[in-house]
Amino acid sequence: MNSVRLVEVGARDGLQNEARSLSVDTRIALVERLADAGLRTIEAGAFVSPRWVPQMADSAAVLRGLGERHGVTYTALVPNLQGLDMALAAGCREVAVFAAASEAFSQKNINCSIAQSLKRFEPVLAKALEAGVAVRGYVSCVLGCPFSGAVPVPQVVAVTQALYAMGCYEVSLGDTIGTGTPGATTRLIQACADAVPLSALAGHFHDTYGMAVANVQAAWQAGVRVFDSSVSGLGGCPYSPGATGNVATEELVYLFEGQGIATGVDLAKLLEVAVFIDNRLQRTGESRVAKALRARPQ
Amino acid sequence: MNSVRLVEVGARDGLQNEARSLSVDTRIALVERLADAGLRTIEAGAFVSPRWVPQMADSAAVLRGLGERHGVTYTALVPNLQGLDMALAAGCREVAVFAAASEAFSQKNINCSIAQSLKRFEPVLAKALEAGVAVRGYVSCVLGCPFSGAVPVPQVVAVTQALYAMGCYEVSLGDTIGTGTPGATTRLIQACADAVPLSALAGHFHDTYGMAVANVQAAWQAGVRVFDSSVSGLGGCPYSPGATGNVATEELVYLFEGQGIATGVDLAKLLEVAVFIDNRLQRTGESRVAKALRARPQ
Repeated sequence: MNSVRLVEVGARDGLQNEARSLSVDTRIALVERLADAGLRTIEAGAFVSPRWVPQMADSAAVLRGLGERHGVTYTALVPNLQGLDMALAAGCREVAVFAAASEAFSQKNINCSIAQSLKRFEPVLAKALEAGVAVRGYVSCVLGCPFSGAVPVPQVVAVTQALYAMGCYEVSLGDTIGTGTPGATTRLIQACADAVPLSALAGHFHDTYGMAVANVQAAWQAGVRVFDSSVSGLGGCPYSPGATGNVATEELVYLFEGQGIATGVDLAKLLEVAVFIDNRLQRTGESRVAKALRARPQ
Repeated sequence: MNSVRLVEVGARDGLQNEARSLSVDTRIALVERLADAGLRTIEAGAFVSPRWVPQMADSAAVLRGLGERHGVTYTALVPNLQGLDMALAAGCREVAVFAAASEAFSQKNINCSIAQSLKRFEPVLAKALEAGVAVRGYVSCVLGCPFSGAVPVPQVVAVTQALYAMGCYEVSLGDTIGTGTPGATTRLIQACADAVPLSALAGHFHDTYGMAVANVQAAWQAGVRVFDSSVSGLGGCPYSPGATGNVATEELVYLFEGQGIATGVDLAKLLEVAVFIDNRLQRTGESRVAKALRARPQ
């Protein structure tokens, strides 16, 4: 049977874009429940400044508080060596670094050029790999930038290739503002797959313009087998306040299982996780699958 | 340049599934504004019993009230000869008949078997064609039935073929409950295209499970060039109260134009139509494109 790996980013990429900050206990409960639902790679925190991202404060306590589970990997974002050291001290076995495909976005988001950011990641990668810790790379703005508009495909390929060459076992291509369409997605994946192995690529799509599921399908057809998503579509779009952000994990489970592609996720349990976290955040969920299954006459 | 034809069904399929009934004047204004936005085929009413579908009462007045426009076709649903006569009297140049691919749905929705419904449409088609009026056919439940679950592809093909053989110039394949996925969509279109010309097929997808845009893309890739949609996603899902129904026209305009496929629709004007009708219905729009474009910093 075909299968796909879903990387759950709700507890990091999702929560850091929600207005409310949650307690360490609630964040641990969220991650544990996601693992109970069958997710096997779960982003659980970020070692970034709590001044800039208060929602990710005390990520060390979250990571330390998670029990070991066979086959489950908890990951954390690290922007630099200091963040990596904190992640290592918290026992992380996998971390992620975050680059942009757009110069304008890199400057505004992490306050340096793309080249500078890659330079900064080199010692992070070296130290992490020496410690036996896997590193995942994110590339943002792969199908458009909120500041500079169109992003040339070769620029995405170059950043992807640099992260892979540096030792990232996987590079997640992020349509940060959700403006991509399936045709552009296909061309992007094909171009990146000329530079790095297809098996090292992941897709990270936002549903801001309702295109995420179609883009995921296009990337799947182009050979991508790993996708990022967020339970209940946690995390809005910081560049279009009030609009949708990460594609909901429920939608990807429905899309893939509906095509006979195993996700390993128990959709009923996932819907319970969505209710739990939406209640804590006092938000309305973004998943249409969840809405439809709840509305369906029993 | 590639192009696609969007059939706007918001003023019929949409409105008939909204709780509020609107005045004839508001319905005329909606249709006129949709034409202003560039839509060229617009469903404007249904000649059905106002006892069963109060939202479509006075469809004759709506159709009569619409001014002639070069290149724009206003259509109406007719369930039987009586409905056709009313449509002809109101000056309709195109009508639509409605069959189901599922026996259970046919019985519950139009109170007869599929075969009986096709039999009933024969004289409707004959009389319409004799009057020089084009007839479109709808087939519902093509990717699942709310009462009986899975619907065998050959059953959809048989109904599609029957409607085409009877004289429908186009058959619109409806995923009435939105449970289809892209793989199933591709297989369905391929099977139907073995029985009738691809150019006679249209896709009608509901976004109840968030799959509509991906399914439209799959159908496009399989060769379909006509799609039904509803401004602002008007019309919920009668089988999952509170869930999403028709895919929003905004999403299809974004999907196609984003891939260089002309729709002829002015998205900015369409967003104004959505605001107009959502205000009248006191509903929240379902289009993510609309939400994102409104939220985007100017």
